[in-house]
This record gives sequence, C-alpha cells and structure tokens, in this order.
Amino acid sequence: MGTSFTAGNPALRAQQVRSFLLKNQLRAWIAWRPEELLMLSGYFPYWGVSLLIYLADAEPVLFVPQIEPRDHIPTGLTVRDYPWGDLKCSDPYSVLIGSVKDELAKAGAKAERVGMTAAASRSALPIQAAEQIPLPENFANRFSAIAAKQEERCKPSFADLYLRKTSKEIQAIRLANQVANVGLQVFFENLQVGTPEAAVAAKVESAIHQQIGTNGIFHSRGWAMVQSGPNSADSGRFNRSTGRRLDNGDLVLIELATCVNGYWSDLTRTAAVGSPPTASAKLLTIVKSAQQSAIDAIRGGVSAGEIDAIARNKIAEEGLSAFFTHHTGHHVGFRYHDPGFLIAPGVTARLEAGMVVTIEPGAYVPQRGAGARIEDNVLVTETGHEVLSRMETNEKP
Amino acid sequence: MGTSFTAGNPALRAQQVRSFLLKNQLRAWIAWRPEELLMLSGYFPYWGVSLLIYLADAEPVLFVPQIEPRDHIPTGLTVRDYPWGDLKCSDPYSVLIGSVKDELAKAGAKAERVGMTAAASRSALPIQAAEQIPLPENFANRFSAIAAKQEERCKPSFADLYLRKTSKEIQAIRLANQVANVGLQVFFENLQVGTPEAAVAAKVESAIHQQIGTNGIFHSRGWAMVQSGPNSADSGRFNRSTGRRLDNGDLVLIELATCVNGYWSDLTRTAAVGSPPTASAKLLTIVKSAQQSAIDAIRGGVSAGEIDAIARNKIAEEGLSAFFTHHTGHHVGFRYHDPGFLIAPGVTARLEAGMVVTIEPGAYVPQRGAGARIEDNVLVTETGHEVLSRMETNEKP
Repeated sequence: MGTSFTAGNPALRAQQVRSFLLKNQLRAWIAWRPEELLMLSGYFPYWGVSLLIYLADAEPVLFVPQIEPRDHIPTGLTVRDYPWGDLKCSDPYSVLIGSVKDELAKAGAKAERVGMTAAASRSALPIQAAEQIPLPENFANRFSAIAAKQEERCKPSFADLYLRKTSKEIQAIRLANQVANVGLQVFFENLQVGTPEAAVAAKVESAIHQQIGTNGIFHSRGWAMVQSGPNSADSGRFNRSTGRRLDNGDLVLIELATCVNGYWSDLTRTAAVGSPPTASAKLLTIVKSAQQSAIDAIRGGVSAGEIDAIARNKIAEEGLSAFFTHHTGHHVGFRYHDPGFLIAPGVTARLEAGMVVTIEPGAYVPQRGAGARIEDNVLVTETGHEVLSRMETNEKP
Repeated sequence: MGTSFTAGNPALRAQQVRSFLLKNQLRAWIAWRPEELLMLSGYFPYWGVSLLIYLADAEPVLFVPQIEPRDHIPTGLTVRDYPWGDLKCSDPYSVLIGSVKDELAKAGAKAERVGMTAAASRSALPIQAAEQIPLPENFANRFSAIAAKQEERCKPSFADLYLRKTSKEIQAIRLANQVANVGLQVFFENLQVGTPEAAVAAKVESAIHQQIGTNGIFHSRGWAMVQSGPNSADSGRFNRSTGRRLDNGDLVLIELATCVNGYWSDLTRTAAVGSPPTASAKLLTIVKSAQQSAIDAIRGGVSAGEIDAIARNKIAEEGLSAFFTHHTGHHVGFRYHDPGFLIAPGVTARLEAGMVVTIEPGAYVPQRGAGARIEDNVLVTETGHEVLSRMETNEKP
C-alpha cells in the first residue's frame, strides 16, 4: 500500500475534455454526476448535489452545498456554496440555477452551446452511498433554458471521456485495487467449513472500510457478494450472499466492488474449500486458464472481440460454452461499470493504451453445483498490459 | 429478534393505491423504482431493472430480468421475464417496452390513463446497491407513447402513498430496526480509546450484514458513519467516518442507515467515551431530553410543526438554538428518507396513525468540539405512539 492518492486534472484529461467540447460545439459542460465531477475536477462529492461548470476557455466553477465537507475538495478550484441543507431555504435549487445562469452569462455561453447529462441512472454513488442522488426528479428539466444541449446529442462523445485514463487516474484505480486486495486477503483467510456466506462478505467489507485514514484515503467502501457450493452456480446471473454455510468441497466465489476516493475496482475470485470434486477443481482450472489467456493477449490495437474470443474459445474447447453466458469484460474505474464498449463477441472497437478493463470469464454449471469466475482489472499499454489487481498476498497457487 | 418477515400487499395498501388511481383518473401505474415495487407488490428487486404494471381492475403483472433471482419474489404475482442480461440481446428494453405495451392494450388502458415516475433520483437502491439503478438514461422517455401521465401530474398524490404504512409494512420496518439495533449494540461495545472511527463503523456494518439468513432476512445492509470528538461537531452538516482515533472525553455520534429486505431504519446515537467535559455531558443530556419531549407529544392529529417546536424550544431554552440547524424529522420506511412533509418549523401537516417518522434533534457546537444527535423511528398511533427503534440492549443509562 505504498501509493498515495493525489487528486488532479492533469494535462491529458483537460485536453480530452477540450476536444469533446470542440467536437460538440460547446462552450461549457455542466457536470453534476459524481463521476463526472471526479473526471473533470478531481473532486468526489459527499452529498451528490454538487455542480461544476466546466468552461472551454476559463477556470471551472464548482458549486457545493453549504453543508458539504471542504477538506476533500482539491485546491485550485473556484468554489461557491449554495443553501442546500439550510433549514430556512425551501428551494435551494432555484438559488443554484440562478447562480449557474449568472456564471454562464458572464462567460457569454449561450444555452445552445451548453451541455449536461440529464439523468442520474447508472452514475456512481457519491460518498453518502445509502440512497440514490438526492436531487429532485425534475432537476435537469429546470436547466432547459440555460443548457439546451442535453444528453442525447452529446452522450456518445461524452461517454468516450471515460475510456482513456490519465496517469493520475490510473494511480487512483491502482490504489482502489490495493484496497480491494486487503478485502480479498480476508476472503481467502475466512473460507472455513461452517462459516455463512454473509459472514465472509461482511468481514471483507469491514476490512475495506477500515482503510479509511490510511494512505490519503478519505472514502473506502466495498460491496462483497459471496456464493458457495450450489449458490456459486447462480453467480453468472446475480451475485449476493446468503446464510448458507460453507461446506467441504465447495467452490466459493466472491464478487467485489470497491470504491476508494471515488475510483473503482471490480474483482472476482473463486476458491475451493477443502477437497473439491474433480469436476469442480477442473472448472476452476479452466476458467483461470481462459482468463489468463485473454489477459496475455491484451495490448493496444487488439479488438475487444478478439480478446473475448480467446476466453470464450478456451471455455468452449472444454465443452462448457453454454455455461459462459456473459461478456468477458467492460471498462472500469470511474464507476463499478464504466460506459463504453464491452469485451464481448463481435465487438470491433480496439483497446488503446490508458484503457482499464475487467477480464472476467466464468462458467456456471448448475448440474455440478458449481460456478467459477476470475476477474482482474487490466491496464492496456502500448506494448502490452499491466494487471492492476494482482497482489502476491492473495494469489494462491 | 422474534419477528419474521412476510411480504404482502394487504387490503389497506390496495385500497390506498386504488384511491390514488381514481383521483388521478388512471387505469394503470407503471412502477420500476425499487421502493415503488415493494410498496405495490411486496417485491424488492435485485438488479433494479424490474417493472410492475399495477392495474386498477386486474391483477398486477411483474416483469423481471431473466437473470433475476426468483426465490424472493412473492407468490401470487404474475411474473414474466425479459432478456436483460442476455448476451445475445442488444436492446432488452425494446422487448420490455413492447411487452408492456401489449399488456396495457390487452387491458384497454390508453396512454393518457397510464402514469409512471420518470426519474431515478432519490429512490431506494435495489439489493445490488453498489451503483445507481442501471437503466438507460432515456428509459422513461421511451414510455411516452404508452404512459402519458408521467411524474409531474401525479407526483404529489403518489408521494402520499408513502405516508401511512400498513401493519405488514410496520412489521417489516420494526424488523429493520431490530437489525439496526444489533449494529448499535456493536457501536456501544466498541467505544474504546484508540479505536479509529472507521473501525467502529466497519464493525457495525459487519454485524448488520451478518443478519442475512436469520429471521427470513435475505437482504441486510447498513451504512454507518461515526464521528468523534471535534468531528462530532460536523455531524449536523454531514456524516462520515475518518481515521481519527477515539479519545477520552469524546462524544461519539453514529448515524446509521439500515435496509432489511427493502425496508429502512434511520437511527442516530451519541455516547461519551470515558469522562467527557461537563459541557459535552450537558449537551448530550439536553439533546436526549429534547428528543424525549418531542416523542412524548406524538399522537394522531398533532401537527409536524408542533412536534418540531417542542424539540427546538427545549434546545433554545438552553441557549443552543443556533446549533440545531436541521429539521427534527422526516418520514421513513420505504427509503432512508421517505418523501412527504418534514417535521420542521411551521409545518402544518398533521401526523396520522400508521405514519412512521424519525425524531432526531441535535446540537453541534464547534467551540466545544462536540455535537450530539439522538434519532429514533416512531410509529404514530391513534392515541399516542410506539418507538420502533428502542431496544433494551443498547439503552445505556
């Protein structure tokens, strides 16, 4: 855990955003989704009701609730507050929208050259992660007079901004993976016969939560889902933990989402308890081998479909193709699941240096009462790749 | 923990929904937000992409992803699946929307008599709680031809449906509070000098998570935020845990959101570590007394403003009015924060039997490096109230 977190918006990110604005003939972008704020300013919101005006040709302006904690807002940003959380203010959003309007007028940005994402769906959760973003249901509608270029027109090119991470962002995703590995270590240490799935998951999450206060970490939360024995065969369809107690011979699968300071890791491990039946042990070996083959092929320029085919063919060669029912991977880092092309059959989009993707083939065989998936987070480089999520501590032979 | 959970949609709830439909001249309501599904059918979704057609004059129809777990879907519902999660289906929503259209046509429900909520904002998180609901950003727009009465027209009266809980819902909220109290017990047991705030929070969440598999509980998750010493003075503005270690004399506050099988509890406790300074001890006594006075006054027919004034005046009498900066309470149960009127200054809406509200006065004094809040969940009855959240185990003298 030697890496310390530094927020920031280095040159490459600023350049990507400027290209996006230019391409869409925009003077400004209004960001309010947690991961948009993080990407555009390095700031990850607490309440989820902050808003950033990102201008093509001037410093960004950040609006935060008056009750937002200030100690995790990066320096160098112009920060204004608005009366969200003020008992005496019945409509803080009118105040906010008025201020945004003034700021855009001052910059001479007309409505038809201002864009924003309209919906909260699929966005990252803010630090206060117990409910969906508490903005009113008609929030985006209220911007129609000041930001006419809403999601539909700019969405595809905005989604492109998630794809290539900067070196600082990669460092932050690496830290999220280091923290996730603290949780995975606890997973491997708690695979005793008789332990309920939910108890294993709870301990993993607890270890991740306790990283707060170390290494510049102000936010660390894990969502662990542990499925054992016959339940592991469900894990291609959904992940959860039940009260089932681990049994000798089980395969046990953990799906683990981890958010550290706003950056995400998405990992899966499968382990055997005691002596698994030969068929289960073999399933695990096949999936591990399929995953490793796919990872080995990752480098800039390879298509997503090629990577998918490598994993899928390995599993098919063993007669298990019907049991690998999902994609091989997706982009990750700003969210548990970033937007962008999937690593799936037939996808022609190509991997580029700076992309971070999951590689997560699996096979789930109800007839054997066993399922397995191994998932890592892999950085694409010019000449190859770096697996951000593998730590010696939890790599069992 | 003697109460076992039973899903269901008893007569009172069905009657409330029928009145809502009638009042808004609706033949059908399309529900997809997790808490709307729970309220209308007793079903709490896993993925968050399920959809229910609630018809005024026929059985409801539930659409779930083909990869949804089935064992927690209540019996007696007509369940259809749609190809969400099918690798071979590029647009499962077209399939879903086509099926909904067919179903509404079969029932003769014209678009102008079908309503739905358009936005995900503020809704409960589904069981898969690591990201906002994964519906596409334009999801509701795609229903415009089949559900014309969208949120704005029906919203106020739909929000009324959250207010009066049925006896089965109250039982489920009671269970959520019982589980939350398992967590609070861990809080009170872990207030040792030197323990980091985040470690206390992690242990509380872990205990709550481990209730899965007991008492009919299939989903149990807590969000605990622990603030100690000077950090407790921030807790009127935001709640989080840091790496700060508890010190002798600290006030320590825990804000705890708990979701059990889809039903929510929202609690706060404040405790002293060792021997607090007289001023801190007094602050805690004042807040406890203000909270108890407000609770004592709760019964059907009392206005929310009156309850707020009781708590607020108690705190003002001690010269602390400037330090109680938020509302006294809100509705709770279907979400961490249900919609509906606040218990706040000047609110004339009246409490009715069946409502469940938080009572959570606080005072946060940076100059004293101390803050305190006590929050319980209180059921309003005809003649008085029942505090759903108080368990003998954690009530320290």
